Amino acid sequence: MQTIKKYVEANKQRFLDELFELLRFPSVSADPKYKDDVRNAAEYVAEKLRDAGADNVEVCPTAGHPIVYGEKIIDSSKPTVLVYGHYDVQPADPLELWETPPFEPTVRDGKIFARGACDDKGQFYMHVKAFELMQETGTLACNIKFMIEGEEEVGSDNLGTFVKANKQRLDADVVLISDTAMISLDSPSLETGLRGLSYLEVEVTGPNRDLHSGVYGGAVANPATILAKLIASLHDESNRINIPGFYDDVVELSDVERKALNEAPFDETDYKSDLGIKALWGENGYTTIERTGIRPTLEVNGIWGGYIGKGAKTVLPSKAHAKISMRLVPNQDSNKITALFSKHFESIAPDYVTVKVTPHHGGQPAVTPTDSIAYRAAEKAIEEAFGKKPIPTRGGGSIPIVSLFEDELGLKTVLMGFGLDSDNLHSPNEKYDIANYFKGIETIPLFHKYFAELS
Amino acid sequence: MQTIKKYVEANKQRFLDELFELLRFPSVSADPKYKDDVRNAAEYVAEKLRDAGADNVEVCPTAGHPIVYGEKIIDSSKPTVLVYGHYDVQPADPLELWETPPFEPTVRDGKIFARGACDDKGQFYMHVKAFELMQETGTLACNIKFMIEGEEEVGSDNLGTFVKANKQRLDADVVLISDTAMISLDSPSLETGLRGLSYLEVEVTGPNRDLHSGVYGGAVANPATILAKLIASLHDESNRINIPGFYDDVVELSDVERKALNEAPFDETDYKSDLGIKALWGENGYTTIERTGIRPTLEVNGIWGGYIGKGAKTVLPSKAHAKISMRLVPNQDSNKITALFSKHFESIAPDYVTVKVTPHHGGQPAVTPTDSIAYRAAEKAIEEAFGKKPIPTRGGGSIPIVSLFEDELGLKTVLMGFGLDSDNLHSPNEKYDIANYFKGIETIPLFHKYFAELS
Repeated sequence: MQTIKKYVEANKQRFLDELFELLRFPSVSADPKYKDDVRNAAEYVAEKLRDAGADNVEVCPTAGHPIVYGEKIIDSSKPTVLVYGHYDVQPADPLELWETPPFEPTVRDGKIFARGACDDKGQFYMHVKAFELMQETGTLACNIKFMIEGEEEVGSDNLGTFVKANKQRLDADVVLISDTAMISLDSPSLETGLRGLSYLEVEVTGPNRDLHSGVYGGAVANPATILAKLIASLHDESNRINIPGFYDDVVELSDVERKALNEAPFDETDYKSDLGIKALWGENGYTTIERTGIRPTLEVNGIWGGYIGKGAKTVLPSKAHAKISMRLVPNQDSNKITALFSKHFESIAPDYVTVKVTPHHGGQPAVTPTDSIAYRAAEKAIEEAFGKKPIPTRGGGSIPIVSLFEDELGLKTVLMGFGLDSDNLHSPNEKYDIANYFKGIETIPLFHKYFAELS
Repeated sequence: MQTIKKYVEANKQRFLDELFELLRFPSVSADPKYKDDVRNAAEYVAEKLRDAGADNVEVCPTAGHPIVYGEKIIDSSKPTVLVYGHYDVQPADPLELWETPPFEPTVRDGKIFARGACDDKGQFYMHVKAFELMQETGTLACNIKFMIEGEEEVGSDNLGTFVKANKQRLDADVVLISDTAMISLDSPSLETGLRGLSYLEVEVTGPNRDLHSGVYGGAVANPATILAKLIASLHDESNRINIPGFYDDVVELSDVERKALNEAPFDETDYKSDLGIKALWGENGYTTIERTGIRPTLEVNGIWGGYIGKGAKTVLPSKAHAKISMRLVPNQDSNKITALFSKHFESIAPDYVTVKVTPHHGGQPAVTPTDSIAYRAAEKAIEEAFGKKPIPTRGGGSIPIVSLFEDELGLKTVLMGFGLDSDNLHSPNEKYDIANYFKGIETIPLFHKYFAELS
């Protein structure tokens, strides 16, 4: 631990500078106009892996954005850790809500503000620096492989193909991912489950052209009104999702499991005041921790139709659209839910409109075992670095790759995340605490040490 | 009639060229970035009034866009016709749906395609040319005054002030407006009523920032979902507007009046196929003609919230918005309805969101008498020009000025419109038939002739 602390202390400024350089690439995978920036971010990651001492570093082309691979095989008899992360980021808009430019990292009271600061540039880069540390101090205890992709925020469309085509190269004993949150530095935690995702876009079409709302209003169905009615019908009075068969495969937790889950510290008053809301909302009969961790959800991520510019336009729009995503829990199947939603949405559309449902992407839910060598190694590492045993939690987010790894490589994943729920992931003013960044760099080598010892 | 036809025949091309020049000004009153274009359009109108022989032509400044005034007083003992029109137009978006540029007028099979072709540049300009015709052929039968404004599409905010301040100058015997539609050249009609308008914008706010839908989804109310539920609740199962007191002041027509109204030719099959819809929608118990003419309506003119760009973003938005307008019928009061809507919308908002309602603009409904000299003059003019007596109809649109004239100047209005419902008012590919343009120029002098004779 002393070696680690000394090395981090001696290199703090450079560790920050390198991350800032990475954060300056607007590597927004969703928007084609950033294609080159995404590519440049990949090249930068590759360069840094080489500098840190990785071998066979390659920026692997895919049908979409490239995947960066690198490895260090010290001894084939030692266990191998496969590190996964993503260098792409969410779109930064609404830009006007950022206090400082999203791609010009800025430090305010100990926090790095930038798109991707936490999700996931700041988190995966800890592994690059931890690897450098182990390499430079000759403490590398496991073989290590890196796979850093550029399409996580758009559904990892091409990762499956890559993994299937590179099973040999990706062969390992465990997958280590830092792309989740812990409760706080005082209450370190480890996520033991992730929700799956089903993301669709719906289009409701009424008349074949925009109409004058005075001439046709009242006689022709308004697709914006109808879309509103359709969306309103997707949750019932108890805020349960109103799609036939939606809950069929949901695994209900035992009272014991629910009790354990709810022991994680949670202050509803702080939670509400942080969000500036007067009341919480959600599925009746479940706590906030359960609603965000073990229950499936349906959210409207975007809605638009008609005239949305300045001033007033008395138009009856031809079309209205919405982006809708569902978070899934074990054992829901992303493809099955996508099909259920499409079938249901089309079935409830009245005959005075036509609806089109287009799936965006999905991912399977996953649960990680708490009795594995890898989990125990992570537990010991965090306990030593934080002086506290981590609390097992269930995360609300989705990392489709987790189930992909299990299915294709037969590998379990450890979700050792150092972010915070308050890091504004996917929101303006995304941040990552500098303390968490360095704490992560200190913890990771300990994971490798204990994973080697326990294996 | 021969004099008229001869003069029109001899000047057709110039009449078209001048209108095209007027249509090339993107005089969009709603969008500040077109301020200068609006101004230039006003100057052009003034210039053309002078060319046609009007006196005291002036581009009168207002707090917003200017009002063009001009007059020709031939004999104070003769009746005076006040012509009202507007040179401003609706925004042209969605631009991609225009087959030819909105501000580059193009003729396709006898129709002029351009924003404002019918609403209202093409229609008010007929009066300028009809005035020129009467002037040049020495057939001017009435004194004539022009008031052409530039804010009709944004609620005529400054017209009231102007009218109040210029009662002397605007003194007349009747107001003549061409800003409405007739059934067809084969079935000429005269509108005897107009709906009023109440236009508001609503904002629903949930959390104080955009959130990650995986981390917070299911536990925090989504303002887009809540807005959808609120909008869905504004119409009941019979598609009646679900706002307490909304129908209190609505004047129900007698069965006789309804019967007369429904005698206007209407083919539901043609209507639906023109709009590309399988079924009609509307308030139960009323025909399409009634739904668009004598019944109040509520339409969503625009809705937006969350991520509406390309691709997918798993965000739980902080805010969602909608532009909502209501068409009002006699004796509903625009201000009262605006207040009722605001009060109701705020009252139904659940405590996990906050809502803000901002009124845009409004206008009072109006009915024009069919037993007046002016109406009979219009009837005779149309009968002579079209060879058919016009059918009295009730228009769905709103021209707030009509009630303003009645209240401030004590003047009745004649709505002698030559447009068609199919002219794509407020829509892409707005058009105006060249035949209607010239027919209007022929009909207007006959109105002046008969109005003078009958007075």
